[in-house]
Amino acid sequence: MLPEKQQQIQLVSRPEGMPVKEDFLYKEIDVPQPSNGEVLVKTIYLSVDPYMRGRMSDAKSYVEPFKLNEALAGGVVGEIVESKSAHFQKGDFVVGMLPWQEYSVAKEKEVRTIDPDVAPISTYLSILGMTGLTAYFGLMDIGQPKEGETVVVSGAAGAVGSVVGQIAKIQGARVVGIAGSDEKVSYLTDTLGFDEGINYKTTDNIYKTLKEACPDGIDVYFENVGGEIGDAALSLLNKHARIPVCGAISSYNKTDRDLGPRVQSRLIKSSALMKGFVVNDYNDRFKEGATKLGEWLSQGKLQYEETITEGLDNVTDAFLGLFQGKNIGKQLVKIAEPSK
Amino acid sequence: MLPEKQQQIQLVSRPEGMPVKEDFLYKEIDVPQPSNGEVLVKTIYLSVDPYMRGRMSDAKSYVEPFKLNEALAGGVVGEIVESKSAHFQKGDFVVGMLPWQEYSVAKEKEVRTIDPDVAPISTYLSILGMTGLTAYFGLMDIGQPKEGETVVVSGAAGAVGSVVGQIAKIQGARVVGIAGSDEKVSYLTDTLGFDEGINYKTTDNIYKTLKEACPDGIDVYFENVGGEIGDAALSLLNKHARIPVCGAISSYNKTDRDLGPRVQSRLIKSSALMKGFVVNDYNDRFKEGATKLGEWLSQGKLQYEETITEGLDNVTDAFLGLFQGKNIGKQLVKIAEPSK
Repeated sequence: MLPEKQQQIQLVSRPEGMPVKEDFLYKEIDVPQPSNGEVLVKTIYLSVDPYMRGRMSDAKSYVEPFKLNEALAGGVVGEIVESKSAHFQKGDFVVGMLPWQEYSVAKEKEVRTIDPDVAPISTYLSILGMTGLTAYFGLMDIGQPKEGETVVVSGAAGAVGSVVGQIAKIQGARVVGIAGSDEKVSYLTDTLGFDEGINYKTTDNIYKTLKEACPDGIDVYFENVGGEIGDAALSLLNKHARIPVCGAISSYNKTDRDLGPRVQSRLIKSSALMKGFVVNDYNDRFKEGATKLGEWLSQGKLQYEETITEGLDNVTDAFLGLFQGKNIGKQLVKIAEPSK
Repeated sequence: MLPEKQQQIQLVSRPEGMPVKEDFLYKEIDVPQPSNGEVLVKTIYLSVDPYMRGRMSDAKSYVEPFKLNEALAGGVVGEIVESKSAHFQKGDFVVGMLPWQEYSVAKEKEVRTIDPDVAPISTYLSILGMTGLTAYFGLMDIGQPKEGETVVVSGAAGAVGSVVGQIAKIQGARVVGIAGSDEKVSYLTDTLGFDEGINYKTTDNIYKTLKEACPDGIDVYFENVGGEIGDAALSLLNKHARIPVCGAISSYNKTDRDLGPRVQSRLIKSSALMKGFVVNDYNDRFKEGATKLGEWLSQGKLQYEETITEGLDNVTDAFLGLFQGKNIGKQLVKIAEPSK
């Protein structure tokens, strides 16, 4: 029997700087009923991601801002608990962009079936999901690492960065990862096989430390964080360097202007390419990316880590923790147990 | 009869900020003698270019710094006055990278013949030379303007910018040029056919003015100047915008750090591409570019302007004038009359 009521997480005020608990409201709502062609999905895992911070502000970006006094939404892996669609059966696992709540109605096109026998269902929100695809396309399409080149990744122990560095290793590059704790740095070098790791929090001069770690300069800088780490990497570019710009997490909660050295002269000096992207730019190539990631995973060439927080009550904490670097690998929240 | 002595312009100290007269020395030296396989070239036109400022500093860039107490060098159109090479005859006009002096010895490979019947010899330093090629490759290869798109050019009345805007018009784009005087703006719109021109010196809010001039946003921003003009353009990018980064003249003489808003979030927001380049990146495609520019020129589709200063004595003034925006189109210095 399904419950009649459930909890939903709403955005009730637009954060200034770092979001606070009061920006979010847990609200009791009805469990909805699916109509013809729809399914009712029980949320199993919910994905919290840094890019969501952008949608909490009013400024128009590549995705629309979240609406106030409505549910937040993001990547969800769930289980079909009621189906009024011929395409889905009760018990199917699915992935889609759904509201932050326990049960959601989805139209057929809003979710797709995933196979729990291929990989754990959580991976469809991490290594086999948007996160893995973001790493794959940003690195392979924009970064284009070549054997023997030096690839630097910031946010290297995070969801995207940890995959980027491993793919760069598969391509034969020398990989240097920048992260925010000794534990993360050990994870990069000991578990993931990065050539070198830098703990930027214990470094008093990131430029100097990065320069020492990259005696041959930087050919690819995969940007996840921006700020002074980005400034340093942009000072060490080799001729024809490539910079996939995936994120700038250091700036997302800034209330003052995010000022740094202008990049024009640096880009000219090395004929470097810097390109922003979002994973949806590659919508029509998702199959290619997922296939490749799946192959590497099954061949044991890709490791992945998931930091899993338990319970809907802890979703906002898990989200805020992203900005304190609390996670290693992909941060997920487990909302419920699957029925089997 | 050739003279025995001549003047050479040397760099004698590395400028801090804006170069001053005392950084340069006019020195009397011998007119050299060509050996076998060499020619003696009389300098007719000499090119002064903003990028030379970079070579006057010690920092390693894409070209080696000029050496102290040696001649400065740059693009020169000259006339062969003595040939010990089977490939050149006395009276031939040639172009090459040669010292700032009246007569230079050049090896066969250091100069190539130009045809004064095709176009005035000065154009091989301007529209048909490195300047034109810089505009052509930066815009066509990186900018890739499409019909109906909005192309913004900074430094628009300068040597490169004036060609960029015209090529963008040939491609069917709407072109907005930013320049530093009303005279230049009139030149852009009345002579070159730009759709709109902005005098940034009489604008108190370049962002607002540029936004008004680009109601559909910016698809291509051709960067010649950097600074606040670049900041403004980068705030108005459309999805999938392209930014060829050719120069950042506003920063070349800065002694304090050149700080501005970091670009990462802006590039992500619009999945924009920003690429630095120098014309030599396209060495193997010069013929393609020169052919295309020659065609457009002969079809009357390209206009060009040259600001010509007279005399070796005025070379350093002409060079310094670049940073005060004294030139319209290509700044050249005429050193001597051709013999015919």
